[in-house]
Amino acid sequence: MRHILIIGAGKSSSYLIKYLLDHSQNEQLQIIIGDINPEQASKLIHNHPNASVKKLDVFNAEDRALAIEMADIVISMLPAHMHIEVAKDCVRLKKHMVTASYISDAMKDLHDEAVDNNLVFMNEIGVDPGIDHMSAMQVIDRIRDNGGKMILFESFTGGLVAPESDNNLWNYKFTWNPRNVVLAGQGGAAKFLQEGKFKYIPYHRLFRRTEFLEIENYGRFEVYANRDSLKYQSAYGLDNIKTLYRGTMRRVGFSKAWNLFVLLGMTDDSYIIEDSENMSYRDFVNAFLPYSHTDSVELKFRHNLKIDQDDIIWDKLEELDIFSSTKMVHLKRATPAQILQKILMDSWTLSPIDKDMIVMYHKFGYEKDGKKHQIDASMVVIGENQTYTAMAKTVGLPVAIATLAILNEKITTPGVQMPIAREVYTPILSELKNHDIQFTEKDLPYLGYNPLNN
Amino acid sequence: MRHILIIGAGKSSSYLIKYLLDHSQNEQLQIIIGDINPEQASKLIHNHPNASVKKLDVFNAEDRALAIEMADIVISMLPAHMHIEVAKDCVRLKKHMVTASYISDAMKDLHDEAVDNNLVFMNEIGVDPGIDHMSAMQVIDRIRDNGGKMILFESFTGGLVAPESDNNLWNYKFTWNPRNVVLAGQGGAAKFLQEGKFKYIPYHRLFRRTEFLEIENYGRFEVYANRDSLKYQSAYGLDNIKTLYRGTMRRVGFSKAWNLFVLLGMTDDSYIIEDSENMSYRDFVNAFLPYSHTDSVELKFRHNLKIDQDDIIWDKLEELDIFSSTKMVHLKRATPAQILQKILMDSWTLSPIDKDMIVMYHKFGYEKDGKKHQIDASMVVIGENQTYTAMAKTVGLPVAIATLAILNEKITTPGVQMPIAREVYTPILSELKNHDIQFTEKDLPYLGYNPLNN
Repeated sequence: MRHILIIGAGKSSSYLIKYLLDHSQNEQLQIIIGDINPEQASKLIHNHPNASVKKLDVFNAEDRALAIEMADIVISMLPAHMHIEVAKDCVRLKKHMVTASYISDAMKDLHDEAVDNNLVFMNEIGVDPGIDHMSAMQVIDRIRDNGGKMILFESFTGGLVAPESDNNLWNYKFTWNPRNVVLAGQGGAAKFLQEGKFKYIPYHRLFRRTEFLEIENYGRFEVYANRDSLKYQSAYGLDNIKTLYRGTMRRVGFSKAWNLFVLLGMTDDSYIIEDSENMSYRDFVNAFLPYSHTDSVELKFRHNLKIDQDDIIWDKLEELDIFSSTKMVHLKRATPAQILQKILMDSWTLSPIDKDMIVMYHKFGYEKDGKKHQIDASMVVIGENQTYTAMAKTVGLPVAIATLAILNEKITTPGVQMPIAREVYTPILSELKNHDIQFTEKDLPYLGYNPLNN
Repeated sequence: MRHILIIGAGKSSSYLIKYLLDHSQNEQLQIIIGDINPEQASKLIHNHPNASVKKLDVFNAEDRALAIEMADIVISMLPAHMHIEVAKDCVRLKKHMVTASYISDAMKDLHDEAVDNNLVFMNEIGVDPGIDHMSAMQVIDRIRDNGGKMILFESFTGGLVAPESDNNLWNYKFTWNPRNVVLAGQGGAAKFLQEGKFKYIPYHRLFRRTEFLEIENYGRFEVYANRDSLKYQSAYGLDNIKTLYRGTMRRVGFSKAWNLFVLLGMTDDSYIIEDSENMSYRDFVNAFLPYSHTDSVELKFRHNLKIDQDDIIWDKLEELDIFSSTKMVHLKRATPAQILQKILMDSWTLSPIDKDMIVMYHKFGYEKDGKKHQIDASMVVIGENQTYTAMAKTVGLPVAIATLAILNEKITTPGVQMPIAREVYTPILSELKNHDIQFTEKDLPYLGYNPLNN
């Protein structure tokens, strides 16, 4: 038997565990799930004979090492900042490791040791990052193999609510960590390349510089820029590319309305609102508007943000009940972002029958034989229910497939890495198709940003 | 003879040195100026027998201690972050100390030691902070002495160009550190109280929430909020006040135009612009606007920021030549803020014949015998030339007067402090009047924010 230790079995673990259990007989796998809340994890294994759950406090160094020692490979599904102690143990105890998180500087520092010990430390192998890397590199490598030269790459992902559950004016519900949604885009200007020009967008303009795209059968979406679109430029081998733009997808109209919160300062997480505990939602909104003895909060809001009487954006605000003087914040010493999150969770929490959706869209522009071409590739995954979500599927399956491939020595290149090599993405993307995670590709005339040139 | 050591004789030192030299015979003073650039300082002493200049590198601990040892009192006119080593020496060598800077946490930590050694460490005794503290506390103390209860305090200061030199569309030139002007308002939401309500303004809205006021003979000004208006609430004894608002004064229209730079992200100092060295001013502006093959930078600017064809704000931009494709940035690895500063310095640097102006405006609202009252107090100081500026006068004279008062044991309360005690502000404000630094007071009907209530 080969032992796989999964540390942390949160919301994204359902498909990961299911996949490994489904293969546990054939592949001779024993799955051990270590979690601070073993009850929750137990529900996911259905008393499967090849699985066990144990209580594991990852901050207890002795218990952690003991658990890792007994495994052949370790999957960390912990929050990103908690991987590093697990990773250090894995180096010391000579175990392979898999995570779906961005490679931190501390993780990167373990690269040489991992190589010396012939260990594969596969990271960024969830959906975004993960499926985005693999699906993009497959097309980019193919274009290059055929003699094409990349001139444009744009890549967009969104975690959204499925069309059948899309029943609010924002066309949005929280399908993952709400705090990350409230803080999205903060921490520095967005940076990208358009037709050879570096472009910068400050946070407070980010949601006003959207682009639009359409996915067949799923309608229109909008995109706002991710913070650093140039992050993977070198890793992808795109150093001379003209346009490089990565973004987050929302349904059309979300960003313009969200921008009202940004403009007023309601997404700020850097200071405490005085007496937040005793504020109504209305008081909270009013704290960002000038004092007036005569004018209502509503009028001040409309006037300050120049919202017409008949603008649909107003209905979006009212749907959230943010002008309620009876709904109370009830949070002690809270930041604006924490209060806004609470207000949004009233409206944007998934109901038990709601389904989620992951959408991804890549645009590849290239030159071949003096002519410009474009390939668009898109993927849509709909969740089954609130345990088997599209998020859990697109995060968990790549992690599971990669884990088995490492165990079976199909992925062997050692070191701290992300899935951009052919040996990695080819088998994984191929198997993901069997689970209906696949891209639809279209060859198009090159559009780029210079339509008159074409 | 009593020895006064002035460390750092920059732009704000002219009046400080003049005052001390003018009093050096009567008061038996010997002034020693220690500066890294002794030539510059030498010009300010005109070979006066009671003054000497020596080269002093404040980072050389031995030289610094030697210079401080020989003095009876030390004035530090260094940049604020450089005071602390001087202050530690002053504690150790038992010397009084005077600065015009905000009290840092490190400075505050020296309070007990200063008290134990019976040393006066007077800080925040320039113009803002300084004259603002003293002039406000004098009126607040008087209102309270007469049985009034403070309900409103607003205080505004501006360092501007004098009316006779005010010849650009922005009605603004750099009369002090340009970098601080470009970064003004950054680093967190502005916080203040209006009629008992806490109000918060994020940086990107700061310049759109202005208030207006008028100073007789000097016309209209506008005010934007300082970062933390509540900073001195307790020190001033205003814990139960309803309205507390501190701000920065500009000529009307400045803030609305400045806000364009804030909106585009040109005041950001947190990242490096790629290839800034080889950019034209036009390229710099274009980096914050979407790519377009067809549209000019001007049209994209107008469209993105919704500027009408005939808006005077456009002339303000053109006056700065920011759309020039021939003027080059020439700064290596520069931040947006550094580049913007360079562009502005082309237009806003004082010419040799220009004069500066300091304006200050306080509003005091109080209740007495069941009735509400208001006192407005304003001060205007115009510079004489580019050495004897209004800034140097309003910073340097309070420092000089305080220094002499400490030497003469008229200010004796020991410890790290700012000038809010009667023993401090009474003699200083009285003497400032002899130098035409004085406030004009007006009793007014209480306006507050509830005009219908009055």
